[in-house]
Amino acid sequence: MTHSTHPFDDALALAPGAPDHFKGRTTPGYWNMVGPYGGITAATLLQAVLRHPLLLGEPLSLTVNYAAAVEEGPFTVQATPVRTNRSTQHWMVTAEQVNAAGDPAVTTTATVITAARRETWGVSDIPMPAVPGPAECQQTSPMFPSEWFNRYEMRAISGEIPAQWDDSGHSSLTQLWLRDAPARALDFPALAAMCDVFYPRVWLRRARRVPAGTVSITSYFHAGSALLAQTGSGYLLAQARAQEFRNGFFDQSAQLWNEAGKLLATSHQIVYYKE
Amino acid sequence: MTHSTHPFDDALALAPGAPDHFKGRTTPGYWNMVGPYGGITAATLLQAVLRHPLLLGEPLSLTVNYAAAVEEGPFTVQATPVRTNRSTQHWMVTAEQVNAAGDPAVTTTATVITAARRETWGVSDIPMPAVPGPAECQQTSPMFPSEWFNRYEMRAISGEIPAQWDDSGHSSLTQLWLRDAPARALDFPALAAMCDVFYPRVWLRRARRVPAGTVSITSYFHAGSALLAQTGSGYLLAQARAQEFRNGFFDQSAQLWNEAGKLLATSHQIVYYKE
Repeated sequence: MTHSTHPFDDALALAPGAPDHFKGRTTPGYWNMVGPYGGITAATLLQAVLRHPLLLGEPLSLTVNYAAAVEEGPFTVQATPVRTNRSTQHWMVTAEQVNAAGDPAVTTTATVITAARRETWGVSDIPMPAVPGPAECQQTSPMFPSEWFNRYEMRAISGEIPAQWDDSGHSSLTQLWLRDAPARALDFPALAAMCDVFYPRVWLRRARRVPAGTVSITSYFHAGSALLAQTGSGYLLAQARAQEFRNGFFDQSAQLWNEAGKLLATSHQIVYYKE
Repeated sequence: MTHSTHPFDDALALAPGAPDHFKGRTTPGYWNMVGPYGGITAATLLQAVLRHPLLLGEPLSLTVNYAAAVEEGPFTVQATPVRTNRSTQHWMVTAEQVNAAGDPAVTTTATVITAARRETWGVSDIPMPAVPGPAECQQTSPMFPSEWFNRYEMRAISGEIPAQWDDSGHSSLTQLWLRDAPARALDFPALAAMCDVFYPRVWLRRARRVPAGTVSITSYFHAGSALLAQTGSGYLLAQARAQEFRNGFFDQSAQLWNEAGKLLATSHQIVYYKE
């Protein structure tokens, strides 16, 4: 990494190998507690599709399944276009690492759909909530000592991480302003990563910190590259809430708007929790 | 199909073949306009996982990507467990049909996560809406002549298919009571199929009928088999609304509760539309 390379681009560096194969490695810049930040893994798998010579269209849908913790070190991403239609292309993606026994083992799976966007009728059925602007919201100090938190500038609106773990929680809603730190022009991998930026809803809903981790995330991109370019390095309004907590798993719905009020992505995930 | 076989079970009949492979065929009972109902395809891919000898746990998450229309006739489902952990198992699934050139071609891809559910703290953050009971709601007559509509008893609460295509739409919310017709005890494949039961939101939001079709659906199962057994052949309250319509695609969020008010599944999809 040179001084001119953004940590995000450093993390997403992939070297083409055999057909459909790309070699990458974890970087310290997005390290979480026991592996890379899930958002950077999602972004990396999407990046393999975007780097593929047969790519048509732009990302529409991304599902990432976290099958195992990614260990520090190298990994291989395989991205295969399994079906190409006139306006959509379907991809299957896996990431593998060599395990302690010396065998390749799947750590992550994904499916991606890329598509051609067309001018059509359109409307938003979920307008951006009325909230104070980023300048009026205080910057959040890192919530816990995971390096990836330093890669985002977060300005809290509501639903900050509880100051006390006293079982007093009553809502699962978090709203914040968000951008890369240092600032970076928004692209699809960055947006994919940001969809996973929320700390576990179960911590907020219970005001209790329990082990939790994303099992699967699906993000739908409503923005095309022109809208991403318009958004540039501006703030996004990011909102997440849970729907159901039961038997060790909860789901989360999230929306991300740009500051001009355009909905860029909607995202959902299912999360493991303990106790 | 004998007189004692439910059309749903007939549609889901799979014959094991080579390891990880199952042979099925489309059935007239769930035919849509140009292929099988998307929900029956989702259920069939899930069924391959449930029939697999290496299965551990119960369905937690299901993503199905509709890569191409499924043609009338036979298909092969390949379901592969790519990673098995202590409490989760990750599956990659594809369906193929032989195309006009005599080559196998992918029609559908999926990822499935099965998991062990545990007793934990839990809460619902999206309580069932207060609506009239099924007996107070009138049964919907089939909306258009697709055979699969006859496989569901639907009782409209709100957001019925517009009676007139006059561009007068203003909401994308539909609520209905739902069960299999003929009645059938709920299981995971049936619940997966029901997650796709809503007619395209763009028709309702615009009061205009335009070409539309699901591109990808992700469903999270909050119910375990015990809760499904409690639900039996009772009605489910099914609710769906869109978030964003733009550039030829819209997304939809859905929730399905049983009549006792337990949230059984949440689901999201991204849908193609024209004009």
